[in-house]
Amino acid sequence: MIPTSRNLAGIAEQVGATVQGDASVIITGVAPIEAGKPGCIGFLANRKYQSHLATTTLSAVIVTPAMAEGCTTPALIHPNPYATYARVAQLFDDSPRPVPGISEAAHIHPTAKIEKTASIGPGAVVAAGVVIGERSIVGANTVVGENSLIGDDCRIYPNVTIYHGVTMGHQVTIHSNSVIGADGFGFAPENGLWEKIPQMGGVSLGNNVEVGSSTTIDRGALNNTVLEDHVKIDNQVQIGHNARIGRATVIAGCSAIAGSATIGANCMLGGGTGVSGHLTICDGTIITGGTNILTSIRKPGSYSSGVQHDGTAAWMKNAARFKQLDKMARRITQLEKQLAKGGD
Amino acid sequence: MIPTSRNLAGIAEQVGATVQGDASVIITGVAPIEAGKPGCIGFLANRKYQSHLATTTLSAVIVTPAMAEGCTTPALIHPNPYATYARVAQLFDDSPRPVPGISEAAHIHPTAKIEKTASIGPGAVVAAGVVIGERSIVGANTVVGENSLIGDDCRIYPNVTIYHGVTMGHQVTIHSNSVIGADGFGFAPENGLWEKIPQMGGVSLGNNVEVGSSTTIDRGALNNTVLEDHVKIDNQVQIGHNARIGRATVIAGCSAIAGSATIGANCMLGGGTGVSGHLTICDGTIITGGTNILTSIRKPGSYSSGVQHDGTAAWMKNAARFKQLDKMARRITQLEKQLAKGGD
Amino acid sequence: MIPTSRNLAGIAEQVGATVQGDASVIITGVAPIEAGKPGCIGFLANRKYQSHLATTTLSAVIVTPAMAEGCTTPALIHPNPYATYARVAQLFDDSPRPVPGISEAAHIHPTAKIEKTASIGPGAVVAAGVVIGERSIVGANTVVGENSLIGDDCRIYPNVTIYHGVTMGHQVTIHSNSVIGADGFGFAPENGLWEKIPQMGGVSLGNNVEVGSSTTIDRGALNNTVLEDHVKIDNQVQIGHNARIGRATVIAGCSAIAGSATIGANCMLGGGTGVSGHLTICDGTIITGGTNILTSIRKPGSYSSGVQHDGTAAWMKNAARFKQLDKMARRITQLEKQLAKGGD
Repeated sequence: MIPTSRNLAGIAEQVGATVQGDASVIITGVAPIEAGKPGCIGFLANRKYQSHLATTTLSAVIVTPAMAEGCTTPALIHPNPYATYARVAQLFDDSPRPVPGISEAAHIHPTAKIEKTASIGPGAVVAAGVVIGERSIVGANTVVGENSLIGDDCRIYPNVTIYHGVTMGHQVTIHSNSVIGADGFGFAPENGLWEKIPQMGGVSLGNNVEVGSSTTIDRGALNNTVLEDHVKIDNQVQIGHNARIGRATVIAGCSAIAGSATIGANCMLGGGTGVSGHLTICDGTIITGGTNILTSIRKPGSYSSGVQHDGTAAWMKNAARFKQLDKMARRITQLEKQLAKGGD
Repeated sequence: MIPTSRNLAGIAEQVGATVQGDASVIITGVAPIEAGKPGCIGFLANRKYQSHLATTTLSAVIVTPAMAEGCTTPALIHPNPYATYARVAQLFDDSPRPVPGISEAAHIHPTAKIEKTASIGPGAVVAAGVVIGERSIVGANTVVGENSLIGDDCRIYPNVTIYHGVTMGHQVTIHSNSVIGADGFGFAPENGLWEKIPQMGGVSLGNNVEVGSSTTIDRGALNNTVLEDHVKIDNQVQIGHNARIGRATVIAGCSAIAGSATIGANCMLGGGTGVSGHLTICDGTIITGGTNILTSIRKPGSYSSGVQHDGTAAWMKNAARFKQLDKMARRITQLEKQLAKGGD
Repeated sequence: MIPTSRNLAGIAEQVGATVQGDASVIITGVAPIEAGKPGCIGFLANRKYQSHLATTTLSAVIVTPAMAEGCTTPALIHPNPYATYARVAQLFDDSPRPVPGISEAAHIHPTAKIEKTASIGPGAVVAAGVVIGERSIVGANTVVGENSLIGDDCRIYPNVTIYHGVTMGHQVTIHSNSVIGADGFGFAPENGLWEKIPQMGGVSLGNNVEVGSSTTIDRGALNNTVLEDHVKIDNQVQIGHNARIGRATVIAGCSAIAGSATIGANCMLGGGTGVSGHLTICDGTIITGGTNILTSIRKPGSYSSGVQHDGTAAWMKNAARFKQLDKMARRITQLEKQLAKGGD
């Protein structure tokens, strides 16, 4: 289905870019600009690497209008070369896609409503009341619980578990072994034991959401856990019950968002970020990798925590001093006072 | 099976609370006290929010005897409103439950012993010698390895993997895509390579244990990894081989308990906690989220580590100083000495 | 298949050790030296515990030539008792192994090439173009994507997902619910939204690689993500796209290796380690548990970061001072200057 080659003019039309130079050059794939495979197209987004343009053996490059001037290689011109590259690469993406239809080895409840253009893999289990939209793919051995709704053009990879009452929009991707809608972690203490608080809300994923592999998004206690449109979540991320992730926010791998945290729109959370429960993080916040957020963030900006690595022996000495920090600060104040007095 | 409504008197009887006011009021669900949906019952555990009692439009509230006095809404009275709320919510929990019986699409070894009241989902695989107790549920595509024992009233959600030789008591819940009994991480170094140490112990889960989704609990090397009764584990937690988690201890998401760590009873570990191998943590210890525990804890109390977030620019300046901490402490001492001498 | 007992002479021959004392003693299993079960064999690698040799009730011990002298128990002598113990334990490992053959309940594409000695479990899905080598085991409900190659003597446990285009060598082990080859986390920003960058590389695992449970190894964007021979990865580890892990490196649980990081050979990463993207870590580096690596490491050695735990109240006081560290350092410098001037 995917042609193995196409000319630059055709690509330009499909991705909305302008051609400079020979529009008939045949492109067979994408490559990094420094690798420079003939037949391939690459991109240059950063003027710092503009010297590559002179030496590249790529057959075409994607550049900004400003960079196009000195470019002798055939080029696609677009203000955002990186996003244009992404769209070009999509044209050459030949990842296998299952054909439409329901595998004979899938287990479909008779009340499930599955569009004819959808694809359900072998071993997949689709429970009562589930709705699966046009062209959506449910991978092998994935389980979709009662009354969950999957929109159009979704792709759920194999071995995913979607509990009951999960709703997702269109063009949602969920990678393998992720779990959407398991119980939030809620127990009431009583006499040294724990009484289970039933988790009766659901999960709502907007349009164009992508969820990585082995990520877990818990259902809400009473209301829904919500990921708004265009949210992108990496692998091994945990999102607690009743959290809300704002539009187009991205969260990198191994991050943990505790229950009832509200993260604004257009935030970027680095890998291994932790956000405590019931916090609010405002729109446009950047959190660098490995940071723990223990209090709300009300002002957009970049935030960090943690300690940079050091040789273990040196680190041990310094880490031991951490426990004396408050005392050290008081000793400095005391010295300043003494010296001020002495200076009289 | 679950009635959609019931009167307050009936609820009181089922959860062991006392009614104040109109015992015939019909309750149709649970809700937060501040949301105040008519027909619903909520709870108030904290006197700080007592003003809600005057304004709530809930049909009933759950309060302590002390708070009941000024309460004009029909009320359930119980010393522990939160745990009572949990029990009330359980009455209204209408999450789907599979019916008893073995799916024709399950793969059951002829030597497995499964009670008639148990439910085995499609695609589930139950190996030789497995025993599954009364009313237990094994979800779709879950795999139970040889000779593993599942007690009564357990619920194993879909896509879980239970290796061979795992034993669990009654009323155990395991959420989707968790793995119980995979090999512990044991290799002996030799000539720059690694010789596998076979992991020949098992895993033992007590009664009333709950394990979240995508959590991993490794089998022991020679003896068992043990979770005692009433332990509650959240999502994405890793528990290493031969660890022992004491009765009614709770561990929040993304925590990691290394091999042979022993955690006492009634501990509470926040999210993202790390506990090093071979440590002992005493009963009743609280560890706040994101804390790394590198040495044993012998005295109950609350423990923390980590660095609070800051603006990235400020953080970089301060983090760079961390590597000078020991020197800074010595410089303070030197200053104090000089000043003491100067003061002579 | 595995005999329940064998004599010391036979064991010595199989593991390449020398016998001291009664070579006919019958051994029925392995045990820790301090547990000392009669019939069992244990090992002693550390002279510190040499006193155990005098009191052990084990039937045999594994010791170094130097330790053998004072040993009255029958012994296996080898320069590396720990690795020898590992090999002995392997002889007694009676973990169940599936028999060769393809389960009738597996779903095999007609173009897949599976050796007769391989074993494919019920519910497993093997896609088009897959090759599975001699004696390899694909567990129940595991899914292997298009054109992926599995060598000889591999063991893929149940519920694993292997995407298309993943290549692995021989004697590779992958524990349950891990995901190999899901998309790397790559999106190009455009007008506040995110354009998907297709992940068109694969994953390449060398020989003798072991991957724990619920670990995720992403496919590369253009080239492969690579784990070289003898790499051992624990549970819940995330390895980003285009990362490269060098020969015989071990990575403990819950670690996160970001995209395009290059980790050398023979490194040891403790649990909960984070490595930022695009870094290089040289051969032979040791990183202690819970450390975040934000810059490349060029010199072998042991590295650490983090803050040791403390009582929460004390920690809060000290952690608050962290934000003043740079100021504190400047105040010390100022004091030193003042004092130097005063001393004039």
